Amino acid sequence: MQPYLIAPSILSADFARLGDDVAAVLAADADVVHFDVMDNHYVPNLTMGPMVCKALRDYGITAPIDVHLMVEPVDALVPQFAKAGASIISFHPEASKHIDRTVQLIKDHGCQAGLVFNPATPLSYLDYMLDKIDLVLLMSVNPGFGGQKFIPATLDKLAAVRKLIDSRGLDVRLEVDGGVTIDNINAIAQAGADMFVAGSAIFNTDNYADAIAKMRQQLALVAR
Amino acid sequence: MQPYLIAPSILSADFARLGDDVAAVLAADADVVHFDVMDNHYVPNLTMGPMVCKALRDYGITAPIDVHLMVEPVDALVPQFAKAGASIISFHPEASKHIDRTVQLIKDHGCQAGLVFNPATPLSYLDYMLDKIDLVLLMSVNPGFGGQKFIPATLDKLAAVRKLIDSRGLDVRLEVDGGVTIDNINAIAQAGADMFVAGSAIFNTDNYADAIAKMRQQLALVAR
Amino acid sequence: MQPYLIAPSILSADFARLGDDVAAVLAADADVVHFDVMDNHYVPNLTMGPMVCKALRDYGITAPIDVHLMVEPVDALVPQFAKAGASIISFHPEASKHIDRTVQLIKDHGCQAGLVFNPATPLSYLDYMLDKIDLVLLMSVNPGFGGQKFIPATLDKLAAVRKLIDSRGLDVRLEVDGGVTIDNINAIAQAGADMFVAGSAIFNTDNYADAIAKMRQQLALVAR
Amino acid sequence: MQPYLIAPSILSADFARLGDDVAAVLAADADVVHFDVMDNHYVPNLTMGPMVCKALRDYGITAPIDVHLMVEPVDALVPQFAKAGASIISFHPEASKHIDRTVQLIKDHGCQAGLVFNPATPLSYLDYMLDKIDLVLLMSVNPGFGGQKFIPATLDKLAAVRKLIDSRGLDVRLEVDGGVTIDNINAIAQAGADMFVAGSAIFNTDNYADAIAKMRQQLALVAR
Amino acid sequence: MQPYLIAPSILSADFARLGDDVAAVLAADADVVHFDVMDNHYVPNLTMGPMVCKALRDYGITAPIDVHLMVEPVDALVPQFAKAGASIISFHPEASKHIDRTVQLIKDHGCQAGLVFNPATPLSYLDYMLDKIDLVLLMSVNPGFGGQKFIPATLDKLAAVRKLIDSRGLDVRLEVDGGVTIDNINAIAQAGADMFVAGSAIFNTDNYADAIAKMRQQLALVAR
Amino acid sequence: MQPYLIAPSILSADFARLGDDVAAVLAADADVVHFDVMDNHYVPNLTMGPMVCKALRDYGITAPIDVHLMVEPVDALVPQFAKAGASIISFHPEASKHIDRTVQLIKDHGCQAGLVFNPATPLSYLDYMLDKIDLVLLMSVNPGFGGQKFIPATLDKLAAVRKLIDSRGLDVRLEVDGGVTIDNINAIAQAGADMFVAGSAIFNTDNYADAIAKMRQQLALVAR
Repeated sequence: MQPYLIAPSILSADFARLGDDVAAVLAADADVVHFDVMDNHYVPNLTMGPMVCKALRDYGITAPIDVHLMVEPVDALVPQFAKAGASIISFHPEASKHIDRTVQLIKDHGCQAGLVFNPATPLSYLDYMLDKIDLVLLMSVNPGFGGQKFIPATLDKLAAVRKLIDSRGLDVRLEVDGGVTIDNINAIAQAGADMFVAGSAIFNTDNYADAIAKMRQQLALVAR
Repeated sequence: MQPYLIAPSILSADFARLGDDVAAVLAADADVVHFDVMDNHYVPNLTMGPMVCKALRDYGITAPIDVHLMVEPVDALVPQFAKAGASIISFHPEASKHIDRTVQLIKDHGCQAGLVFNPATPLSYLDYMLDKIDLVLLMSVNPGFGGQKFIPATLDKLAAVRKLIDSRGLDVRLEVDGGVTIDNINAIAQAGADMFVAGSAIFNTDNYADAIAKMRQQLALVAR
Repeated sequence: MQPYLIAPSILSADFARLGDDVAAVLAADADVVHFDVMDNHYVPNLTMGPMVCKALRDYGITAPIDVHLMVEPVDALVPQFAKAGASIISFHPEASKHIDRTVQLIKDHGCQAGLVFNPATPLSYLDYMLDKIDLVLLMSVNPGFGGQKFIPATLDKLAAVRKLIDSRGLDVRLEVDGGVTIDNINAIAQAGADMFVAGSAIFNTDNYADAIAKMRQQLALVAR
Repeated sequence: MQPYLIAPSILSADFARLGDDVAAVLAADADVVHFDVMDNHYVPNLTMGPMVCKALRDYGITAPIDVHLMVEPVDALVPQFAKAGASIISFHPEASKHIDRTVQLIKDHGCQAGLVFNPATPLSYLDYMLDKIDLVLLMSVNPGFGGQKFIPATLDKLAAVRKLIDSRGLDVRLEVDGGVTIDNINAIAQAGADMFVAGSAIFNTDNYADAIAKMRQQLALVAR
Repeated sequence: MQPYLIAPSILSADFARLGDDVAAVLAADADVVHFDVMDNHYVPNLTMGPMVCKALRDYGITAPIDVHLMVEPVDALVPQFAKAGASIISFHPEASKHIDRTVQLIKDHGCQAGLVFNPATPLSYLDYMLDKIDLVLLMSVNPGFGGQKFIPATLDKLAAVRKLIDSRGLDVRLEVDGGVTIDNINAIAQAGADMFVAGSAIFNTDNYADAIAKMRQQLALVAR
Repeated sequence: MQPYLIAPSILSADFARLGDDVAAVLAADADVVHFDVMDNHYVPNLTMGPMVCKALRDYGITAPIDVHLMVEPVDALVPQFAKAGASIISFHPEASKHIDRTVQLIKDHGCQAGLVFNPATPLSYLDYMLDKIDLVLLMSVNPGFGGQKFIPATLDKLAAVRKLIDSRGLDVRLEVDGGVTIDNINAIAQAGADMFVAGSAIFNTDNYADAIAKMRQQLALVAR
């Protein structure tokens, strides 16, 4: 497994020039496109759906697309996003009546599956699911908007999930989303994360390559 | 009032190059940007929200943006779209518990307000609202997807609304959305429409200007 | 069109011997099996679903099965009932966000489509749908339970629908459901109905053939 | 039937001294207590429920209590309010899946039943219900809050309902709620109303008796 | 307590001859009738309701009927099923807003109460309920359809619940539902289950008695 | 922190004389006004909303008002109650999609925040929230009605929460609501509670001061 993945969130990209902006951030050494889907029901905002994902593939984006469904219910969108080119599809366990079925549905459509935890969501949802999924995403802000500040208690929660993954010897990515910056990425990785969503910390700079390079420098300092 | 308005639906535009594509269709003599908002609850599809609308304004689009909310409930998105640059906001009466309040809310935020009718929706929703709104939008397909075929019964319904508007001497736009093409736009105008959403009939051609020009030629032949 | 159809409602049949009981009522000269589907959401009762419909077909029932969906939402059950052998599928317009789409969906699955009107539901839902459907079903009781008494105001409503159908020269069945008995079936037919659901009036008698024969005698007296 | 009824809305009363305030307004010659129930689902406000109604009866209020349910769904609260001492229970037709059943439920619990129309709600809901109810309540503001301004289009709507009632010779009260004041009550009565909810126009004055007397003076001038 | 109970699921029985089929499986040495109730809301299927349960009692079935409610919300159906002859009523904790109240309601109606766990549902719902219920049902497939394959991770979960029950010395049945066959019933019992739902493994054979006898042979080999 | 707080629930007060009754109970040495808000959706009862809270402040009540929201969803009522004079706002974690955001919202409006646990709700909701809130409220009855009996298992749950609070050295109130009386308040305090809601045990007596004094006598005997 590649040690650390940088996943810019297109929530902070330029929606009028999305293809160019995503291509630019990937050329600047990002690994994965983080695609935030909000339906104005699970969260109080509406962003974009499968057609936008497909447009990125048609544009020529070949990097993995990591779809984060902030929607409720979940199942109807899974086949649509799989067909539109998603690589990973993750969802909030509270938003699906049948979590195991939804994970199975995602895999049956050829994608990797993830579970997302809000800041207050207990980890007990992992008890019987951790070995069936490819990714755990911990929210370090309350989902719905970009530009929020990292909630420090996420560090302990990351450490708890890291311990669960390692103690079972599982090959599960541990992603973090919300308020990740050059200043805190080292501490976040130290706590156990190996995949980092960053929105404004990359897209709101003049030089994507520089921002990502600085993040990688911080990650290179992590002793694990 | 300008006699006829052409409103290309961005549902058929290129979402990876949305600014350029919308600018191109406007340069090709379109009048209004028709912006289709779906939330995967009122219709079985999710498209895009206020941030995409704002991105078009930031890109430099100055034409009117005609936001068609295929969402339920409606009210929470109204201020967000007004702030994002919407000119007109229309919604389905079945999707709001308090239709008059929603119309008032749209106007209080400085936008024009419209009511949208599904193919089966009776016109009785206009009984006490026609003189409070700026636009009636008749769906000539079932909303949710682009590329569907025009439902012929819409012609009679258009005529009925046209009669209501004219008999009261009101200044209300009569828009039609779904399956409008060069081949049927004359009949649709003849029936009473004066604002025409067209998606694939414009965006799926090689030459937007040519497609719009041909529509205008057909409209020029309408005797009213 | 066969002038009058008798459609026994299996709501009053013996669910422990459903195949035999339905076969018996058909042998007793009934025309159609009326299949009441309740989901405990649109109505406060839960009856039975597609698997029971399929079991009747597997048992050997070949008469038309007239599925009345008292469910909300509607669309997901349509393909399931079509596959399970339904001939007609009717639904309440208030229970579908997109009535025209649901009608189209029923037809695309090879079934006839109907709209059902609760006692208080206005007929305006027919304004743009009457020529697209095969059946109008007027409830003469509030749906949810068998054994209720016929609401007399239904007679005027039947007459109004009959007038709409005939004035447009349409081939649309006009069905009535709720409290139909030997005593009132003549008046109901006189008002315009040509398809009669009867539950307890048939199944709660000792002799199905006798009950149905008496209904047909009453119908033979109708002057139309 | 008493020609005109004044129904002060307790939405504007003093909730900390509700018994005294209601007793005072009745002593000041009001006829009926108008009791506004909001559940924060049908309208964006939450007011008070059956226990408050019962407390008024226990206090000694004997005047009719006119319960206006701005709630969705409706049925569960009907028996609770009947038991708590309600005289009339009215509800919005959009808020009940089975309008006729809800009316029947209200009557079975010994109360009078009413249907309430929002400013935009078409009158078609009366088509098959007008002869089964005791009261039609037209909202002249959008429900949810006190202190709003009367919507003038209500006058035409009142006239339309008055015509329906009189043409059928029915004994149905025609109530109006929202922005009724001494200045417009004459015109409202002239349009056909015979029952007047007034909140701030009475409770926000120093002298309830004086406010009500002035309303009655205006009503005495109505030629009908 | 009888050591092991076999509970054939009528989901795989013949719905056209339900009385005969259930009687046959009981005559073939089954202990309990497992009755699957689906409402097309909590699960994507609709099966059957209280009237079918009552029909089995009227037919003469006297064995315990073990009602598994795959419905949301739960409470309204409890009295209906109790009246229809249910012996045990179990429900999913996610489907009731007030789990303790629902358990109490079931007991107040004279039935035994159970909690059902989906494959992904954590056991924390038992923390304050295990000593108030009569049965824990672990789903070894995602509910909604018959004929699915046993999820192996259920074995560990069964062991965890068995440990909880035994360590507190409670008299609580531990039931398992989904993909139970002659081949895996020994391992399932070894893990701690003492009540076994089996649908297709019994009803899809030519000889119910033979299938059940073979299950009992496997159970006789369990060392506990 | 004051060792023990007595919080009379106005659910048992006289709603027709609410100001006087609340003033009386405070004069009788109560510490806090417990304000029960029910919306007929999260619980099957509707009580009262922000306007009643404001009326108590306008009346002159200056004691802390402890608002217990038995509503779903939660967020819209938070600013309304803060503006109406609430001191503490607590809610059920199952009733908010974003628990951390709701807590933050309450604090941003200047109130203290609490989480409420139904009898069956596991404590895992505290895992990542205990250090962000001011109060934990354990329900010792199922919410919805006054006058119920204390559920004994609450004592163990209180002890578990007390241990969590003390082991982290947090300044969090531990409140209990439901069936608290003079006879069991000592045991409840012994188990760890330091804030006691009491409704009928105070308001249904002739002498509030006497009832509260006896509770305080019991509390004085607690050895901690």
